[in-house]
Amino acid sequence: MGGANDASLDRLLSTIREANGLSGVSSLLGRSETADPATAALAHAFASNILDYDDTHWATAIHPAGAVASALLGWAGTAPVTGEDLLHAFMIGMEVSCRIGLAVSPGHYEHGWHITSTCGVFGAAVAVGRVMGLSPRQMTWAIGHAATQSSGLVASLGTMAKTLNIAHAARNGLVAAQYAKHGITASETALEARFGFAEVMSPKPFAASLTERLGEHWEAEHNTFKPYPCGFLLHPALDACLASPGLLSVDPSTIENVQITLHPLAQVRADRPHPKDGLEAKLSVQHAVAVALLHGNAKVRAFTDLVVNDPVVRACRSKMRVATDESLATNGARLEVRPLSGQVIVREVPHVRGEAASPMSDAALEMKFRDLVAHGAPHCDADLLLAGMRDLPHAADATELVRLTRPIC
Amino acid sequence: MGGANDASLDRLLSTIREANGLSGVSSLLGRSETADPATAALAHAFASNILDYDDTHWATAIHPAGAVASALLGWAGTAPVTGEDLLHAFMIGMEVSCRIGLAVSPGHYEHGWHITSTCGVFGAAVAVGRVMGLSPRQMTWAIGHAATQSSGLVASLGTMAKTLNIAHAARNGLVAAQYAKHGITASETALEARFGFAEVMSPKPFAASLTERLGEHWEAEHNTFKPYPCGFLLHPALDACLASPGLLSVDPSTIENVQITLHPLAQVRADRPHPKDGLEAKLSVQHAVAVALLHGNAKVRAFTDLVVNDPVVRACRSKMRVATDESLATNGARLEVRPLSGQVIVREVPHVRGEAASPMSDAALEMKFRDLVAHGAPHCDADLLLAGMRDLPHAADATELVRLTRPIC
Repeated sequence: MGGANDASLDRLLSTIREANGLSGVSSLLGRSETADPATAALAHAFASNILDYDDTHWATAIHPAGAVASALLGWAGTAPVTGEDLLHAFMIGMEVSCRIGLAVSPGHYEHGWHITSTCGVFGAAVAVGRVMGLSPRQMTWAIGHAATQSSGLVASLGTMAKTLNIAHAARNGLVAAQYAKHGITASETALEARFGFAEVMSPKPFAASLTERLGEHWEAEHNTFKPYPCGFLLHPALDACLASPGLLSVDPSTIENVQITLHPLAQVRADRPHPKDGLEAKLSVQHAVAVALLHGNAKVRAFTDLVVNDPVVRACRSKMRVATDESLATNGARLEVRPLSGQVIVREVPHVRGEAASPMSDAALEMKFRDLVAHGAPHCDADLLLAGMRDLPHAADATELVRLTRPIC
Repeated sequence: MGGANDASLDRLLSTIREANGLSGVSSLLGRSETADPATAALAHAFASNILDYDDTHWATAIHPAGAVASALLGWAGTAPVTGEDLLHAFMIGMEVSCRIGLAVSPGHYEHGWHITSTCGVFGAAVAVGRVMGLSPRQMTWAIGHAATQSSGLVASLGTMAKTLNIAHAARNGLVAAQYAKHGITASETALEARFGFAEVMSPKPFAASLTERLGEHWEAEHNTFKPYPCGFLLHPALDACLASPGLLSVDPSTIENVQITLHPLAQVRADRPHPKDGLEAKLSVQHAVAVALLHGNAKVRAFTDLVVNDPVVRACRSKMRVATDESLATNGARLEVRPLSGQVIVREVPHVRGEAASPMSDAALEMKFRDLVAHGAPHCDADLLLAGMRDLPHAADATELVRLTRPIC
């Protein structure tokens, strides 16, 4: 909802409209257009990620919900699906994305694969395949079609292509299930086969964890919500500024410099001293800490081009120094604020907020939802949508909720 | 043209029609439907490869023309393009696919990447970008969008997903150029950047050959035509049977066994003693040699399910033994035919027909074209199309030629 009317999504839909036309059976969340199921999956997943305000499965660095939910909502346009069936398929898709991700972690992401995309395509395929009622053999084909379309480079981070990676995961996963449904064959062992996904795209064979305690242990339960609209590796440093006891009492003009210490993996992704625009700023820990110190919060506006190029923000950003410490967790951070005069202030965050050990409260989640509706789809009635989501397990047609978000013309 | 009405393409188009509808500005070669440019690119590239009768750039194992030409013909539906401009863009796209392929060879393909797809997406993007008139910066985005969508696993070989890989390369390359045209950003250094294509998908950094003598040396000139409708690694063994002095005088029933010796890389891909259907048989050197000995040729029919499951073919196939010899070229083969009685007959092919050193003649190419039209689009006038292709450099609108192939309703 927060990204439903983002300018870059408008641009994406214009691109599709120009060459292909834009129409079909699937409604688009928070928009007036309709689209074919594959395009709806693409658009929803793009919207889910463009603000970098989605979810995080920390053990894999996957943001799993976007690709899976978007593919499901795209497909759900073709025939009514109950809320219960939709949620069931959603959980299965989430589990598949997270388990495949875990089985190739940490080497796969470290190597440069944009894991949300490369593993998200499997979750999207399986979730849609579940709603379609694919046979077991068809489901292996769906997974095979997903595997051979799995793609997404970390080099895309900081550009619109990063969010497109996730959009492609949703779209291609849905298409993989469509192919399988129509008897278009694929490798039936594409995950584990010679020259298959694990061999080609993972530095080591699949971990046994892939199917361990399947149906008992749910890895998807470890998914968490993002409290800040930016790359998750920036969140520990933001918590150090903003969560109690934060640094809000520090006047930024009195700071000589701030040392931000991260785990080396986080540093590789998040050390961007000179972000050129909002998209890149979402991955710049220097920018995140600077705006948090200046504004006392880190909301969607903090990562817009306008704020990124604000001379005051730029000056504060230039005071940031990034260091690494292998003894930190990837979801931890240490800040050392050195004032022009006086004592150094140290804040260390062992576990980020929104992480399983300290999850966001229901009230904070509701607030996040209301903020995002106000930002991306202010024509919508957030109360009505919240009630609809709470009632989703009993809904006869889950896509009613999507249609509720259409602007009234 | 040969694959234009293949049953698996019918199935693919039904899949798209069911969910998305099938209509648009682009004509489909040899068919009555029209489609949007991306779907036309997908369908054409699928048709180009489904018979395994396309082209081969031996140094990389890429079949480059399908993805590039299909993307161009898909896009050309949106606005007239002259034959000269189309051919110019085609050559540039071919060159890009082959050069990127060379720069990551041989490790990339050996590792399990379906290189026709993973590198074809670049050629498709650049060719379409050229026809669109993208600016240099937009072209870098198109390459960035291609890089982050680059995909395709060798595990898909032997299933329909293998041909879909190439279809996706064409479609996704076209879409990459569309994104760039509309200002959707991507990494501007996606080939060489940290966590970019070369680092993530190649076992070694790019070779200097990527841009060496660019515009002087044309790697695409080393592309060759396939004389047989099957995996190119089977061609040397087929030449040993069928090219002069072949083995046509040998009565297969008098054979005890045949030893087929290949380069180890060829053996890994082509040693399939028990192909289950026509698709897998196109990659089985045992099947290829068996049908060549039995039928005295190797045409499209030899790789159909019917022939694969023929008991006579199966019995002959069981007499084949595959061995490896590193001293052979990948485009060479040695056959040792051991009769039930008498002398072993040895045939060694140092360079396959269709390879640069012994190219197919214009007459053989014309024959191949006529055979394929008769197989896949018998409603078409092959003479008219041959004349149109010869005149293509002077055509005011290259897509006229595509429209000429439509069935008359």
